[in-house]
Amino acid sequence: MTKVYVMLYDTPEDTPPTPRSSGELLDNPQESSLALSSASHRSRREASDPESGTRTVYVITATYPRPEQEADLVRLSQTLMHAAPFLFWVVVEDAPQRTPVVTELLERSGLRYVHLVAEVPELALPRPRFWGRVPRGVASRNTGLSWVRSHATAGVVYFADDDNSYDIRIFTEVAPSPQSSLSIPWCSPQIQKTRGVSVFPVGLVTELGVSSPVVVGGQVTDFYDGWHGGRRFPIDMAGFAVSVTLLKQRPNATMPYRAGYEEDGFLKELGVTREDLQPLADECSQILVWHTRTEKVAPIRSADLNKFQGSNIVALMDHLLPMKA
Amino acid sequence: MTKVYVMLYDTPEDTPPTPRSSGELLDNPQESSLALSSASHRSRREASDPESGTRTVYVITATYPRPEQEADLVRLSQTLMHAAPFLFWVVVEDAPQRTPVVTELLERSGLRYVHLVAEVPELALPRPRFWGRVPRGVASRNTGLSWVRSHATAGVVYFADDDNSYDIRIFTEVAPSPQSSLSIPWCSPQIQKTRGVSVFPVGLVTELGVSSPVVVGGQVTDFYDGWHGGRRFPIDMAGFAVSVTLLKQRPNATMPYRAGYEEDGFLKELGVTREDLQPLADECSQILVWHTRTEKVAPIRSADLNKFQGSNIVALMDHLLPMKA
Repeated sequence: MTKVYVMLYDTPEDTPPTPRSSGELLDNPQESSLALSSASHRSRREASDPESGTRTVYVITATYPRPEQEADLVRLSQTLMHAAPFLFWVVVEDAPQRTPVVTELLERSGLRYVHLVAEVPELALPRPRFWGRVPRGVASRNTGLSWVRSHATAGVVYFADDDNSYDIRIFTEVAPSPQSSLSIPWCSPQIQKTRGVSVFPVGLVTELGVSSPVVVGGQVTDFYDGWHGGRRFPIDMAGFAVSVTLLKQRPNATMPYRAGYEEDGFLKELGVTREDLQPLADECSQILVWHTRTEKVAPIRSADLNKFQGSNIVALMDHLLPMKA
Repeated sequence: MTKVYVMLYDTPEDTPPTPRSSGELLDNPQESSLALSSASHRSRREASDPESGTRTVYVITATYPRPEQEADLVRLSQTLMHAAPFLFWVVVEDAPQRTPVVTELLERSGLRYVHLVAEVPELALPRPRFWGRVPRGVASRNTGLSWVRSHATAGVVYFADDDNSYDIRIFTEVAPSPQSSLSIPWCSPQIQKTRGVSVFPVGLVTELGVSSPVVVGGQVTDFYDGWHGGRRFPIDMAGFAVSVTLLKQRPNATMPYRAGYEEDGFLKELGVTREDLQPLADECSQILVWHTRTEKVAPIRSADLNKFQGSNIVALMDHLLPMKA
């Protein structure tokens, strides 16, 4: 791979993509070039600080069909809805086709979104596993990155898994709704401030209770994480964001198919150093994201539908059985 | 206990309590009588149908300090915020005092709320356990019921545990925010329609994937639930709502300290029959609530703070260590 020096900071201007994208974009590949812009080259000193609260955050969510999928995505969609004007949701399913209940909840959410299925490169499949874990979601995240590179001109990319918990203050400073008479002391938007790569603490990671950069005097000096594993960037998937400009300047940067090393591998390929990392969330002193996990339920068993003909149970089973996987 | 015949349907008028209640109410017991109204006695035929979308839903959430508490409550608060004008959140902690991070997130939410601690009757403690489970949350829910009886004049009570998932359509038909340019096909509000006791399906309960009343021709004829256990009402805690009027007409109805039988015991004490149950969610054909559970993390281990003096890790530990429990 040829390495070239590129600027690590984003430009302040931000043009959101066409309003209300839909799954059809996937089937219309010639659209994918429309928003490509040439990368601008400026020195770090020249780069202006994009503090504007109107930049679009491209939230990439890797998901897969399972009994808990609908509940997790409904809950996440309702969080993202609070920041709807500034969000574009890139939902990528690790599945042969889009799950209908997911399409429905995306449509209902009113969010700008695209609903994709992961493209799994065949070479990636026999790669090593770690701690017995399959690196689920890698193909989905790379598919999402590829979509953002093709469709976005500016903004920020963030990976939001479907069962994590997000304080909406990480996405926006705008109060949700005047009609709901809320009086919220909003802090400034966090992820929208991302210039190159921003970092922040993630709660409930390992027995330390948090994974966070160590910040002294505004600079990342080390990492506080219960498992280093020889990583240069011991950072959780939910603990960083990347500017679209940087992403496009590194067109080959992807996540490796190596469980536990996805974030580290991706950040290395982006070409950043520890000194480049931009601490957010009040210099990493606030937890606004948590690595919660939803307990898996037993596979769904189908009812004897003959017994329930003419009742609501037939409709419930129609809804549930496609999610048996 | 003297049994008297009372109407099971709520009156249509609904007066929300004083706007923006706060934890101080707990320390001001003389306020508790202000909203008591005498129970009205009308026949079922006379009771009007309270379809109005402005009734207040009193959401009682039993919670307790643990590492996942903040994440779960932040996520739930952001769901409830979409229905803020119609909601009053009764948060009851099973703890000797209120957890400060909970107070902070309640204040930040902008919701009307009260933050209580559970009053555990000493006699309740040595009661039998079931399947090795302690009936956690019973004292909290009974404390919440007692608060609603004392402070509310009308509306609906619903028990929303902090790690379940709720589709906001169960609370309100009002679109969340005009400014977020959402165009949501809202169905009519569900819980707000509750006359006496309403019932609806809960997803992810047992290996059947759902716990639901069986509804034929608008009537509850049976229950579809993976575990009956000799219960008259095999209904999940998240699968029913009760009108405030009925609750006040049955002043002694509480949840028993018997794991697995809390809902059944409470519904029996409310004096309802299966025929009285009002099916919601399109005659129980839609799942709008899921019994998700957040995986427990290991107890939080504290850092060697000497090593991190002058960094953000000190602030993170100050935040986390009170949640070690």
